Amino acid sequence: MSKKNIQDKLLVFALGGVGEIGKNMYVVQYANDIVVVDAGLKFPEEDMLGIDIVIPDITYLTENRDKVRGILITHGHEDHIGGLPYVLKHLNVPLYATKLTLGLIEGKLKEAGLLGETKRILINAESEVQLGAIKASFFKTNHSIPDSVGVCLDTPEGTVVHTGDFKFDHTPVNNQYADLQRIADIGRRGVLALLSDSTNAERAGFTPSESNIGSELEDIFRKATQRVVVATFASNVHRIQQVVNAATATKRKIAVVGRSMVNVVTIASELGYLNIPEGTIIEPEEINKMAADRVAVLCTGSQGEPMSALTRMARSTHRKIDIMPGDTVIIAATPIPGNERYVGRTVDELFRLGAKVIYGPGSVSGVHVSGHGSQEELKLMLNLIRPKYFIPIHGEYRMLRQHALLGEAVGIERENIFVIDNGDTVEFQSGAARKGSKVPAGNVLIDGLGVGDVGNIVLRDRKLLSQDGILVVVVTLSKQDGAILSGPDIISRGFVYVRESEGLLEEANRIVTSTLHKLMNDKVNEWASLKTNVKDALGRFLYEQTRRRPMILPIIMEV
Amino acid sequence: MSKKNIQDKLLVFALGGVGEIGKNMYVVQYANDIVVVDAGLKFPEEDMLGIDIVIPDITYLTENRDKVRGILITHGHEDHIGGLPYVLKHLNVPLYATKLTLGLIEGKLKEAGLLGETKRILINAESEVQLGAIKASFFKTNHSIPDSVGVCLDTPEGTVVHTGDFKFDHTPVNNQYADLQRIADIGRRGVLALLSDSTNAERAGFTPSESNIGSELEDIFRKATQRVVVATFASNVHRIQQVVNAATATKRKIAVVGRSMVNVVTIASELGYLNIPEGTIIEPEEINKMAADRVAVLCTGSQGEPMSALTRMARSTHRKIDIMPGDTVIIAATPIPGNERYVGRTVDELFRLGAKVIYGPGSVSGVHVSGHGSQEELKLMLNLIRPKYFIPIHGEYRMLRQHALLGEAVGIERENIFVIDNGDTVEFQSGAARKGSKVPAGNVLIDGLGVGDVGNIVLRDRKLLSQDGILVVVVTLSKQDGAILSGPDIISRGFVYVRESEGLLEEANRIVTSTLHKLMNDKVNEWASLKTNVKDALGRFLYEQTRRRPMILPIIMEV
Repeated sequence: MSKKNIQDKLLVFALGGVGEIGKNMYVVQYANDIVVVDAGLKFPEEDMLGIDIVIPDITYLTENRDKVRGILITHGHEDHIGGLPYVLKHLNVPLYATKLTLGLIEGKLKEAGLLGETKRILINAESEVQLGAIKASFFKTNHSIPDSVGVCLDTPEGTVVHTGDFKFDHTPVNNQYADLQRIADIGRRGVLALLSDSTNAERAGFTPSESNIGSELEDIFRKATQRVVVATFASNVHRIQQVVNAATATKRKIAVVGRSMVNVVTIASELGYLNIPEGTIIEPEEINKMAADRVAVLCTGSQGEPMSALTRMARSTHRKIDIMPGDTVIIAATPIPGNERYVGRTVDELFRLGAKVIYGPGSVSGVHVSGHGSQEELKLMLNLIRPKYFIPIHGEYRMLRQHALLGEAVGIERENIFVIDNGDTVEFQSGAARKGSKVPAGNVLIDGLGVGDVGNIVLRDRKLLSQDGILVVVVTLSKQDGAILSGPDIISRGFVYVRESEGLLEEANRIVTSTLHKLMNDKVNEWASLKTNVKDALGRFLYEQTRRRPMILPIIMEV
Repeated sequence: MSKKNIQDKLLVFALGGVGEIGKNMYVVQYANDIVVVDAGLKFPEEDMLGIDIVIPDITYLTENRDKVRGILITHGHEDHIGGLPYVLKHLNVPLYATKLTLGLIEGKLKEAGLLGETKRILINAESEVQLGAIKASFFKTNHSIPDSVGVCLDTPEGTVVHTGDFKFDHTPVNNQYADLQRIADIGRRGVLALLSDSTNAERAGFTPSESNIGSELEDIFRKATQRVVVATFASNVHRIQQVVNAATATKRKIAVVGRSMVNVVTIASELGYLNIPEGTIIEPEEINKMAADRVAVLCTGSQGEPMSALTRMARSTHRKIDIMPGDTVIIAATPIPGNERYVGRTVDELFRLGAKVIYGPGSVSGVHVSGHGSQEELKLMLNLIRPKYFIPIHGEYRMLRQHALLGEAVGIERENIFVIDNGDTVEFQSGAARKGSKVPAGNVLIDGLGVGDVGNIVLRDRKLLSQDGILVVVVTLSKQDGAILSGPDIISRGFVYVRESEGLLEEANRIVTSTLHKLMNDKVNEWASLKTNVKDALGRFLYEQTRRRPMILPIIMEV
């Protein structure tokens, strides 16, 4: 360990990932050395209308750019790597990641034109990296993507462990076991603080092994008399391997469909994470020429995403693949909260096309398991590490809270457990911890090419517009005497169907005209009060008539 | 049975409730006699922006108004009675319902000013009603509201049975058992067609008894050292009774909070469906004066609805009740699909206030069970009735499909099972059934006071506006020479935050101006093509710059 200055502090905080699912970014700082773990994105909440993705606010990092020694990436999921193209634009620091993770990141950076200028360091579970006063090492975990690791950060103030996303799978598909020995050894050496994945902290018991799915898939493949279509998460390479195995065992060729599925299958095969027998993969065009019971389709769309491959097939709008009566469709995923209705609609459409659909929660369908450890695994991690302090991460507030209760249950002092919000710092000094001051943290909204140009006012307007639409009132007044030269014209969008509401809009027109005349007579002629008066009079009338409150936009021109 | 004319047909169809959850309305017609079962509403789907509720299109009924003999109501849930205030405005026919159901309906009709002019006939499970050639009788069922019945319609063509919503609860809270004997007897006499509830057709096994919840609630009440707050569906009178029982057993008074909860408790108590010991109910204001362990709160908000009592308490914006650290909050409900995130947020906020929160699926929390029968109960109903034909109702397409599979499993011929859409008729004549022609059916959208004035165009505009907002471009041209007298002015709402995007909007302005000048030079001066050109040029520019497609509304005035 580096030498320790008595005034130096260790700071641990999240810029994203606590009090939410996604957008993971954690910061460990000792004196003048900052190490970042992950740089994820999250998908917009339902009130973030029109937003494409959300990334962390990295003001703290850009203001301390000379101290940032690097970003360590735990695994290749979007909620851990998806923010990189945005973050690296403002913060050119080295990246450290395992092989598959780096492969997925490099695809992203290439698209963003950042590949050349980003220093990328390949690590494995044996690597040690000195980042200023902080020494990083890694340990293998199990998760729903290969090559996931946890991070161990030795600092002069003590050791901080970050689990990444994890489960304990005792029969992993790729025979890559979570490194229980190394984790236990880290615990034995003494850990100051543990940051651990809370995603499944609300679930009792153990999460089943990914390999349970293999025999279920093979059964379904064997029983299917026609084509089998499997939709799952593109990044779940283990699941994809098991689909390949089931297809091979039942002598079916596989067409891979959907941009991200093709992308992951290509990268994972090249890097040796997928074992696909020569000649197994065929082009989507070929399947129509082949016997239905010799074909399988592996595709995206397990969340019912509107533009995805499975959704298009279900709506009969896919260019290359039609679902035929008697086909078997397997949705090997559980809907992420908020997606239930989309998935439900896809299942409905597939049934309408005559398909046999296997879907539903993993416990029912047998074709999905979670990639995150349940309560017993979380307790196992806590007991392997036995940290002095515990900071639950990765989860909505209620999940962090439940994880905190598990921490208490295994004997961690309640006052040594910190349930934090993004930006809350925990300060460690001389072995003691306390809540420190806040650092800037929040959501940066990305809408098209715009990063952060959509804020609360724009979102509030979109919300209003989405509910009752807009009325634009245009009138041209004379500069000389204030007489109405043209208009008022009222144009509505998203308010009422005009052909059915002519009377209403004519009456609205009369109200605007009489309001303006009255104001003229009263010699009121500042634009601001003309506009306010028109808005109020019209708003009142429309609410009385319709009980709706459209946005009203008065535009007064003078010539 | 009435006499039968060989040319007369029996028609059965849905105007709402198949291929969807909610908006239930079924029609049975024999010759010139129409009987309607239920008149429900549904809540808008996520793409019905700004819509308050959705009701069935009753064109068929208004066009055949002289044939409609009455509306039979199976129970008092909104998805079975909520459409009545709209339907009865256009179709003044008698209503038939049991006591509690009628009590709840009368509250609605009073609000809508329809109570005086609506003929209401109280029925019970022993009633027989002659409706033209159709004789209606009823049978008791179990459901998550008391006084629910199924309907048996004897027609000259044969008997049609409609289950309503049901489960088989062998230990019902109110000791009102489903009438197995009567159902069996109907089956014994021979049933032409069964219409049966498919809501839980995807769920294996039996739905647990409502009374299981009682002891769980009492345990929680006993362990609670401070106040207990219980949120559940206002209409679940059985659940409310069990909350009352738990409070009584633990010597707590109850404050009832939330408009619909107060409403149901009042009506159900008056009509004898709730047994609340004298002095148990207190005003919400009183609870702050009482010892915390002597108080319980019964409230709405189990779905995380934004304006509900529990949501307000969770956000500390309720006028009368504050959640205190150490309070126990029970959410005795499962989130309806689509509401998961809202409920999750409420739980998060309650945890932040220091409450102990009991939530989650009924199988985990122990404080909720479904009101709908699972697969074993659906098969039991099929085997008690043993119909010749089977029409699954109440459910999304996939649920109807699963229910159809259950029908096949118990031995109904596949070709005798009709999985229908709203408006599809099934025609019965001389003991045979076939698909008949379609009748008008669809969604009538209610937005404020407007019934049906919001259609696809308005919804499409709201969707567009919600994604990228709107830009209004206003310019005044001279009538004489087409010169620009004023503008172009560009006003944006919901597009970008103006202060951050001045450059963009200035450039947009220049593009509009140069487009107009070019058109003037080319002597193009019809408004339509001026507008189209401005729209295209500006749209292209904005998409290039921002990858967004706001609605663009060009307004050209001439003076």
